[in-house]
Amino acid sequence: MTEYLESVAVVGAGSWGTTLAHLLGDKGYPVDLWVYEKEVFEAIRDNRENRIYLPGFALSGNIRPHLDMKAVVSEHRLVVMVVPSHVYRQVALQMLPHLRRDAILVTATKGIENETLLTMSQVWNELSEATRVVSLAGPSFAPEVMRKVPTAVTVAADDLDTAREAQRVFHTSYFRVYTSVDKIGVELAGALKNVIALAAGVCDGLGCGHNTRAALITRGLAEITRLGVRMGAHPFTFAGLSGIGDLLLTCTGDLSRNRTVGYKLGQGRKLEEVLGDMRMVAEGVKTARSVYHLAKRLNVEMPISEQVYRVLYEGKDPRRAVQELMERDLKHELEMYDENAPILNGYAHGR
Amino acid sequence: MTEYLESVAVVGAGSWGTTLAHLLGDKGYPVDLWVYEKEVFEAIRDNRENRIYLPGFALSGNIRPHLDMKAVVSEHRLVVMVVPSHVYRQVALQMLPHLRRDAILVTATKGIENETLLTMSQVWNELSEATRVVSLAGPSFAPEVMRKVPTAVTVAADDLDTAREAQRVFHTSYFRVYTSVDKIGVELAGALKNVIALAAGVCDGLGCGHNTRAALITRGLAEITRLGVRMGAHPFTFAGLSGIGDLLLTCTGDLSRNRTVGYKLGQGRKLEEVLGDMRMVAEGVKTARSVYHLAKRLNVEMPISEQVYRVLYEGKDPRRAVQELMERDLKHELEMYDENAPILNGYAHGR
Repeated sequence: MTEYLESVAVVGAGSWGTTLAHLLGDKGYPVDLWVYEKEVFEAIRDNRENRIYLPGFALSGNIRPHLDMKAVVSEHRLVVMVVPSHVYRQVALQMLPHLRRDAILVTATKGIENETLLTMSQVWNELSEATRVVSLAGPSFAPEVMRKVPTAVTVAADDLDTAREAQRVFHTSYFRVYTSVDKIGVELAGALKNVIALAAGVCDGLGCGHNTRAALITRGLAEITRLGVRMGAHPFTFAGLSGIGDLLLTCTGDLSRNRTVGYKLGQGRKLEEVLGDMRMVAEGVKTARSVYHLAKRLNVEMPISEQVYRVLYEGKDPRRAVQELMERDLKHELEMYDENAPILNGYAHGR
Repeated sequence: MTEYLESVAVVGAGSWGTTLAHLLGDKGYPVDLWVYEKEVFEAIRDNRENRIYLPGFALSGNIRPHLDMKAVVSEHRLVVMVVPSHVYRQVALQMLPHLRRDAILVTATKGIENETLLTMSQVWNELSEATRVVSLAGPSFAPEVMRKVPTAVTVAADDLDTAREAQRVFHTSYFRVYTSVDKIGVELAGALKNVIALAAGVCDGLGCGHNTRAALITRGLAEITRLGVRMGAHPFTFAGLSGIGDLLLTCTGDLSRNRTVGYKLGQGRKLEEVLGDMRMVAEGVKTARSVYHLAKRLNVEMPISEQVYRVLYEGKDPRRAVQELMERDLKHELEMYDENAPILNGYAHGR
């Protein structure tokens, strides 16, 4: 395993970044971890604990926290990046001068840049065509990974060799890593499902029934698949770990930030108020805005995501939003996929 | 709406059959309901309540219960059938002499016949080629439909006109009915997902983490899709209401029988003991046996369904079953779909 890589860098010490750093440290890799907040840096350095974002876990002694980017990035071939989408570009620009030419950049942020409507790997492509980017996504609550609860995720790259390299680095007996070559699909599935998780949370907050919620999530999966395919993703990726897998996790556990935001909105609270209570980022709130504009630009019908946008950003009454969704015209169930046929067809031929 | 149908028949007065009868009665249709058990028959006749299978709900006055099959079936063009899969053929044979030649048979049973490995519509095809069969499936807990909680289901027939006719009959403001022409897919998705629901229940009973369960369900969806496609289903049907929709419902609510059986098995109880406690049928227990044999016959790899079979029928320790699943060789995530490519391709062309 270590014939490929002697050490790794992790950029971002939120709960997921810290967890991935710990997982790699626990596997024996020396890990240089870039931390943005001084308070977090000191807690990790002095107490081996990220008290802010991942309290209660003793972190691997192989993790070295840093505030300086150069010290973290310059030495390593494998660099993991987990920072919120709204600061992603800015942090990437900070990393860029220090990145090795042969670096593999593993991105684990689930979001779409608001201004450009680009995914995180597309941001990298824009900044540096040479950097090989791998997307990591799948159903993985950080505290469970810290407790070594069996977990499965997907790593996707443009070529299978790169994906396999990331697989070898991350894989452990309790952290199973599947490969994929549908990078844009894995990335979009991971980001877009957060918007549907928000909708499911709103539904729960309103006291909808289980039947209603299941229908909403299923139709939501269909519409994000439709957008994804329009953007070049393979539709089956949305039925995989990074799509329905992560959506299932979000909707069945109590730990998800996006579902929590939706839940409180459904109960009648205002967005600013809800976000004011949280220190961590609910990526779905930002992604909802990007999705709204992507759907308009690409002319893809996304009724559920549109209602989420209106509830979040136009103060629409959540009850009216759900009601309008239920009153839409009836459709043929597979109609939603029909427009994908030529693309599917291409895939069927191409592999 | 009633220009098509003046009245309907419902065969089977379990919780779902009673609910569909009530929904149609509430919509204004006179409903003749065939009841197998005298105790249930009397309760409905005398108290307008199905105390055994759907206690606490006042049933529509338009429902007339019967013990005699001829009186129920002979007069109606639309006949709904909801009886457990292990008595399905026997009841169908009882209905057959009385069925109108132009009858539309709506089947809402989710199972696969153990001896023949046929779906319910395939059983009908064997008995009577002339009967037009519609499959109805989707995420729908009966008590929620009784309370008019917004619900969405799919009706599938070989031709869209027949599916649309069933859609018109069942559709209400709170019961949204989508059409499909993938009859075998809707039927298989509805039946096979019960086996994955059992597996999810086992996982919960064992105290698995959320991450593990989400991975299990996602990989389970992939393997039932694989079997379904081999049997002629459209893969997207499994990502729809009758597949992931119903699976989501089963795994997030506490009301599901299949999940409950799995849960108790996971806690270490024996199958006979668990089933002895239940009056209602957990179709997944029977379907697991059919799926095991179908997978063998068609040479489809179904590791999760196979472990469910071994836990149910060979007394395998559930903990060992889950452990073995986690220790399997790593795969490329989309590999599971690769064999479907030619069929997918056919679909893409065919529509």
